[in-house]
Amino acid sequence: MTESTRRQLNDVNLEAMGALIEKIRREPEAAKTQWRADVRWTGALRSEARSRDLGPLPSDEPFALGGSNTAPNPVEQLLAALGNCLAVGYAANASVAGVQIRSLRIELEGEIDLHAFLGLRGGNAGYESIRATVHLESDASPEQRKLLHEKVVGSSPVGHTLSRAVPLRIELG
Amino acid sequence: MTESTRRQLNDVNLEAMGALIEKIRREPEAAKTQWRADVRWTGALRSEARSRDLGPLPSDEPFALGGSNTAPNPVEQLLAALGNCLAVGYAANASVAGVQIRSLRIELEGEIDLHAFLGLRGGNAGYESIRATVHLESDASPEQRKLLHEKVVGSSPVGHTLSRAVPLRIELG
Repeated sequence: MTESTRRQLNDVNLEAMGALIEKIRREPEAAKTQWRADVRWTGALRSEARSRDLGPLPSDEPFALGGSNTAPNPVEQLLAALGNCLAVGYAANASVAGVQIRSLRIELEGEIDLHAFLGLRGGNAGYESIRATVHLESDASPEQRKLLHEKVVGSSPVGHTLSRAVPLRIELG
Repeated sequence: MTESTRRQLNDVNLEAMGALIEKIRREPEAAKTQWRADVRWTGALRSEARSRDLGPLPSDEPFALGGSNTAPNPVEQLLAALGNCLAVGYAANASVAGVQIRSLRIELEGEIDLHAFLGLRGGNAGYESIRATVHLESDASPEQRKLLHEKVVGSSPVGHTLSRAVPLRIELG
């Protein structure tokens, strides 16, 4: 496979990614990135998050939790973020490895005990565990699939964030 | 303030939330909830996440990371999920406390070193730390604001998920 066809594999812009890698090799400080979101409450249990100049990410709660059920809730958004992150990792690493993706789907699920969120007792209000199952159709060999999966799981920003305890500072300004 | 006006405070449906709390008091097993998301790759570094029958949460990467910059990326979605979760907590707990919210905005930021994500070295590919600043305009007293903040931070499902190491199982199906 030539470089020019590889660059377009899975429509991924490997040239831009390669340029960033070269830049970071020359200038390691360029790897330090900061990410932001700005959330505004829009009434009831609804809100909207914005990052950069991109469209809003709407949020709501199901009826049973007192919401109006117009959008996924924050704990579903968390699973979405993990799944979307794994999809990026698969698309990027498959393209680098010369693997063509025919289809890629990721199912995510996790359990939450509502006692703490509802103030009925203390303890963990968050996910007790999270599972993701990747369904990949591609031209990869079994060995390539295995290596690809290891690479994606080993370098997933959202996966690493969830599997570690992140120092969190939440302040009322 | 009468019960009927309190119920509609900040448009929050406290009746539904109260019914759920009563149900869980009678039947603690009802507090065990499972949440899901289903992610599909849509080409390049784009994907869409769906939960239940709700509209999709689109995902993309910035141009510099090889994406087409059409939507917030997964690490921005993670900050969005935290901010949206804090907004739910504020709206719900303020309403229970009889506090009227005039406006609520939450700014979130966090740092990621791209070396691990780009495969340039091992280690943490995720957030090193995350900060959230809540801007609340309301009729709450300084004491009420403080209690409200403590309650929200102490019971945030996304906040607790991020500040703990969550058992994560990611499998290739």
